[in-house]
Amino acid sequence: MTIQLYGFSTYAQSLVIIHVLKELGLSYEVIQPASLEEMKSPEYLATKHPFGKMPILNDDGFQIYETRAIVRYLVHKYQGTKTSNVLIPSDVQKAALVEQFISVEANYYNQPLAKMLTQLILAKKLGNEPDLKIVNEAREELDKNLDVYEKLLEGKDYLTGEFSLVDFLHIPSTYYAFKAGEGELWNKRPNVSRWWKNISERESWKSIVTEYKLDEVV
Amino acid sequence: MTIQLYGFSTYAQSLVIIHVLKELGLSYEVIQPASLEEMKSPEYLATKHPFGKMPILNDDGFQIYETRAIVRYLVHKYQGTKTSNVLIPSDVQKAALVEQFISVEANYYNQPLAKMLTQLILAKKLGNEPDLKIVNEAREELDKNLDVYEKLLEGKDYLTGEFSLVDFLHIPSTYYAFKAGEGELWNKRPNVSRWWKNISERESWKSIVTEYKLDEVV
Ligand SMILES: N[C@@H](CCC(=O)N[C@@H](CS)C(=O)NCC(=O)O)C(=O)O
Ligand SMILES: N[C@@H](CCC(=O)N[C@@H](CS)C(=O)NCC(=O)O)C(=O)O
Repeated sequence: MTIQLYGFSTYAQSLVIIHVLKELGLSYEVIQPASLEEMKSPEYLATKHPFGKMPILNDDGFQIYETRAIVRYLVHKYQGTKTSNVLIPSDVQKAALVEQFISVEANYYNQPLAKMLTQLILAKKLGNEPDLKIVNEAREELDKNLDVYEKLLEGKDYLTGEFSLVDFLHIPSTYYAFKAGEGELWNKRPNVSRWWKNISERESWKSIVTEYKLDEVV
Repeated sequence: MTIQLYGFSTYAQSLVIIHVLKELGLSYEVIQPASLEEMKSPEYLATKHPFGKMPILNDDGFQIYETRAIVRYLVHKYQGTKTSNVLIPSDVQKAALVEQFISVEANYYNQPLAKMLTQLILAKKLGNEPDLKIVNEAREELDKNLDVYEKLLEGKDYLTGEFSLVDFLHIPSTYYAFKAGEGELWNKRPNVSRWWKNISERESWKSIVTEYKLDEVV
């Protein structure tokens, strides 16, 4: 049975998983939920995601939720079987550095960025005015943390030195930040913008932007 | 060279790592920072943790930061070498469930709980009044999420069914929540309180409470 991803294909978290599926050369199908409300239904909570979130993955009856757990599972199960792309190296120290930066992404990059995007994109989509106080505070925090990224990326093409799973985790949310007019945060930093070019111009990501018509979103 | 953990031994994140070190049967030394301010010094940022946090680990010259990355590294490198405790199973699906719940802990348990503890313990320690609005909002969120835990733990002794790394991640912060007078959140739920008993009465944790005099903290 082909791998099933349950979730809106335009959502950042779904896109991270789709990107990993492509790099691993796996075939999959995306099942779009009927509505946003569905996620809060008793049935959804009981059978899909107990905290009422998306996406979730079903691999031949094995079901799992939480994006970062899903992509680690896919890598551990399938890396090296269809393509030679290495997303988590087998060397224990190199793998530890990938994990270190996955935690950095979750704590210091995605947290403020998700707050900004929830206001700039989601609130707008739902017809609400974005809360500019939240946007400004989150932008300030992200700006400070991108200064650290600028240092971490000095002389490096990718966060750990080599392309890995952690670079992927940054792509969809950053893509949406650019669409929301926030690209200057990345562009004004030479190392950060070089890194962003390296990861966002990868063929697999460009094919996703086309296939899922991401330039038409928002 | 023995493993060095750099960080205050009473901090929840340090304690998670100390607990894992003990279960894996590893010897280690804890190096206490000179002060909290040290973490923001240019030298600390350049050589220890670029985002100015603790703890960090040094294993014979290999240095790594971020608690969850540190414990995964220790497990991958040392599991099975000194003790037979299994913190991450080798089976790829079982390991994926451990990761699923590690993400659950980070997003739905630790986030509200850390907000509460920052106010109830840290603010107090620094001589500030806790912000009760933050405490109440965080408590409400945690309360709701513990309802989900109550369902997830139905008929199970541990989150994935078997004792694993993810149970550890909950222990120190929950221990401090009880000390801060919030134990009712756990006690009022039969499955959650049974689980808390299972994990907090483990010998390794009890020995840590004694050794690091945790009952005298706060
Ligand atoms: N921790 C979850 C977060 C997923 C998440 O936030 N999903 C969003 C869409 S990208 C969602 O389900 N939002 C609905 C809601 O929070 O009600 C993961 O890593 O998968
Ligand atoms: N994401 C870090 C968080 C560590 C953390 O928050 N440490 C606290 C002490 S438990 C700290 O360093 N606080 C100092 C500060 O934030 O200024 C990790 O997982 O290790």
